[in-house]
Amino acid sequence: MMLRLDQIVARFGGEIVGAGDTVISRIDTLENAGPGDLAFLANPKYRCQLATTRAAAVIMAPPAAEGPAAAILTPQPYLYYARVAQWLNPQPAAEPGVHSSAVVEGEVAASASIGPNVWIGAGAKIGDGVMIAANCSVGAGVEIGSGSRLAANVAIYPGSRLGRRCLVHSGAVIGADGFGFAREVTGAWVKIPQIGRVLIGDDVEIGAGTTIDRGALGDTVIADGVKLDNQIQVGHNVQIGAHTAMAGCVGIAGSAVVGARCTVGGGAVILGHLHIADDVNVAAGTLVMKSIESAGTYSGAVPFLEHRQWLRNFSRLRHLDAMADKIRALEQRLAALEKKA
Amino acid sequence: MMLRLDQIVARFGGEIVGAGDTVISRIDTLENAGPGDLAFLANPKYRCQLATTRAAAVIMAPPAAEGPAAAILTPQPYLYYARVAQWLNPQPAAEPGVHSSAVVEGEVAASASIGPNVWIGAGAKIGDGVMIAANCSVGAGVEIGSGSRLAANVAIYPGSRLGRRCLVHSGAVIGADGFGFAREVTGAWVKIPQIGRVLIGDDVEIGAGTTIDRGALGDTVIADGVKLDNQIQVGHNVQIGAHTAMAGCVGIAGSAVVGARCTVGGGAVILGHLHIADDVNVAAGTLVMKSIESAGTYSGAVPFLEHRQWLRNFSRLRHLDAMADKIRALEQRLAALEKKA
Amino acid sequence: MMLRLDQIVARFGGEIVGAGDTVISRIDTLENAGPGDLAFLANPKYRCQLATTRAAAVIMAPPAAEGPAAAILTPQPYLYYARVAQWLNPQPAAEPGVHSSAVVEGEVAASASIGPNVWIGAGAKIGDGVMIAANCSVGAGVEIGSGSRLAANVAIYPGSRLGRRCLVHSGAVIGADGFGFAREVTGAWVKIPQIGRVLIGDDVEIGAGTTIDRGALGDTVIADGVKLDNQIQVGHNVQIGAHTAMAGCVGIAGSAVVGARCTVGGGAVILGHLHIADDVNVAAGTLVMKSIESAGTYSGAVPFLEHRQWLRNFSRLRHLDAMADKIRALEQRLAALEKKA
Repeated sequence: MMLRLDQIVARFGGEIVGAGDTVISRIDTLENAGPGDLAFLANPKYRCQLATTRAAAVIMAPPAAEGPAAAILTPQPYLYYARVAQWLNPQPAAEPGVHSSAVVEGEVAASASIGPNVWIGAGAKIGDGVMIAANCSVGAGVEIGSGSRLAANVAIYPGSRLGRRCLVHSGAVIGADGFGFAREVTGAWVKIPQIGRVLIGDDVEIGAGTTIDRGALGDTVIADGVKLDNQIQVGHNVQIGAHTAMAGCVGIAGSAVVGARCTVGGGAVILGHLHIADDVNVAAGTLVMKSIESAGTYSGAVPFLEHRQWLRNFSRLRHLDAMADKIRALEQRLAALEKKA
Repeated sequence: MMLRLDQIVARFGGEIVGAGDTVISRIDTLENAGPGDLAFLANPKYRCQLATTRAAAVIMAPPAAEGPAAAILTPQPYLYYARVAQWLNPQPAAEPGVHSSAVVEGEVAASASIGPNVWIGAGAKIGDGVMIAANCSVGAGVEIGSGSRLAANVAIYPGSRLGRRCLVHSGAVIGADGFGFAREVTGAWVKIPQIGRVLIGDDVEIGAGTTIDRGALGDTVIADGVKLDNQIQVGHNVQIGAHTAMAGCVGIAGSAVVGARCTVGGGAVILGHLHIADDVNVAAGTLVMKSIESAGTYSGAVPFLEHRQWLRNFSRLRHLDAMADKIRALEQRLAALEKKA
Repeated sequence: MMLRLDQIVARFGGEIVGAGDTVISRIDTLENAGPGDLAFLANPKYRCQLATTRAAAVIMAPPAAEGPAAAILTPQPYLYYARVAQWLNPQPAAEPGVHSSAVVEGEVAASASIGPNVWIGAGAKIGDGVMIAANCSVGAGVEIGSGSRLAANVAIYPGSRLGRRCLVHSGAVIGADGFGFAREVTGAWVKIPQIGRVLIGDDVEIGAGTTIDRGALGDTVIADGVKLDNQIQVGHNVQIGAHTAMAGCVGIAGSAVVGARCTVGGGAVILGHLHIADDVNVAAGTLVMKSIESAGTYSGAVPFLEHRQWLRNFSRLRHLDAMADKIRALEQRLAALEKKA
């Protein structure tokens, strides 16, 4: 696809500096862009690359800077880049039809695309333009809204519902049993039937290998616009508010309620039955062990050290209480001396 | 299904308060239960909901409380709830037979159910009433005991053995190679063939995306009644004792031996070659870096703070040793002064 | 297979102690080896087992020790064990051909083996002797070099490239979209098209459930000889240097660059855009939150304690800054007193 800067600005706004008929066909970083490419400057750290970039034009925040042959000025260059990149890289349209090797027991819209060796159980409803790639398993009664896409090897348990324009990556599992057991006196576990569902809103992205359990009683609910990276674990009856985004390897234990527009960094863990307010940012590697009632940024991330330094410092963690006691004793003894003096 | 309270008590024991012919057909929480529902009070925190519940009857510990129309009194209401819920929600029976799209090279009991696009390798033995859902791959020589169920898209490597009444969730991988390499002087790795097996007992549940590696030499052994949540990683030659339960995202490195009736919280990591005694509880987020020789509860979970508080406090972790030195110096100087005074 | 010690030494070097015509057919640990077995002593901790082992011969470092009937002396017994074990346990050769249930749209070498219900997309190139097990999905345009093996249920996205002699375990996902979004003022996320590839070198092993995202712009690159254990998450545009090995459950955020010959312990997390030098060892459970510029061993692992001890000590983490302040105040007061005295 070839686009002129004035075409781009006509669609997305912004101010052109230089020749509006500059033609671009690709988008790339300042460093890697070549002739015919549109680059972007989102992080001020890379400003110095403006002088040497070979890009035909650069998306950047005002004011205009010397260097690039042309520019589009916009207050949010990263967001602008995302939109131009989407225009330049449209999703391949679904090739309507059901592959001859697929086993379809449910209802599939004529415009949907069902790939090789897919299984779709009885009573499932697959909406308009949905794409389901090879080797997916879609359980009985599952509903998938129009325009959603499943990459290869996704498993969706019976009764789950996905909204419109969702994107589910390979290896994701939606609707497995939550982890619920009662304990006998002997220590043996008695399974609690997991009879709730997973309800997923519109425009949700679910990463590779991410698992979202069905509710025990009641449902697990993922609101519109939520973005989950790879290998995230969402326990039964969790609720995640609209437009919340979580990075890879996050774990959320059962019945936790996470607000809207939150961000959760990679590897963070949120314990069960907690409540996280709207607009909370949790740093990577944080263990959230109590509810967070107000917006803000929270961290429990532990710094690292060179091994010998670590040995010397972190072994003290076992003795922090004794250190505090020693300080208190010192304060008392010093006060006594000061009184005398 | 419709059940009368006196039928329930005839099967599971307990004492009825109110009308024994009260009929229930569903089980739900105190808050959500409506007419015709049986609710339960397991956590004293919800006791206040007894006054307003619309449930037809409530399972609770004695003594009887005002509020619900009827009750079943039992010392362990959560366990009782689990049993009634199982009765009300029986597992769907296997529809015997092999789907026409499945590729079966092994031996399958006539009462087993093999779903679409399943592969079962040569020499595998699939027991009575086993259910294997769509797109599972069961390697050569695998044995699966009667009544076990595999959800869709499970992969089991050749030679693994599962006991009876196991439940394996989607995306689980049983029997992949352990992580074993010897290092050349150049830094390159030479693979150590992983020739052991995975042996899984009866009544084991394995969560979505959980991976259990085969032994290097000798076997990886999961005892009866073990419950593993989603995305748990079990390294080669690990042994897990009977009725131990682990929450999501736990990692257990090679050759660790975990005792019976242990519980391990979400995201905890147990390092290799360690020994964990019976009846040990490991808190969520704990890194177990040495063996635990006696029953009890252990934690290394790190509290979190609001970002500015975190900056101020956690940067001190790099200087704990210096703080300890300063305290010691203060003690000496103070002792010297005290001597003089 | 039956091997004589002198045959083994002729191939791999080392010095025989005892009868060179001793025949062995299996390899096992000192403890478990029986007659006809070759054992190895790699960890000095097990030296005491030399006296009681029933092995026919033992691989060990010089000097020769009393006990075993025969021995092979070599400075690196673990590496030697790996090589002998590989000889004794050769990989099963691919049975050339495409299973009748597989759907192949790409190009497959005649010597390759394509299992049941596999899908291979248009334009894919599958090299000589490649083995692809059941239910794998290989996207359009994927290239897989000769001798590589995919276990069952692996998903590879369009455009990814794997080198020669790679081994990819079940549930692994290669080439899913990276986690890239720009944020609107409303908090909603706009997806940044992920148009880069995953490029994987020769002799790379990828564990079960491990996910490697494609680049956003540019590629994600895994160099020759890298070994990744199970459930590792590799973000978009990450680069991992040759012969680096990572244990289970490691997470590496986008655009991180990890050097050659590094080792990363289980559950460690490396944040985005960081640079890790060659020959760095990161301990298990460490959160790497800044770049590491020189070789060495680094840790942020947190020790654990019995629950009551933990309560007493770890609650102090919220007050480390106050403790430091108290120490400083004590120093000042003491200095004032000392001046007077």
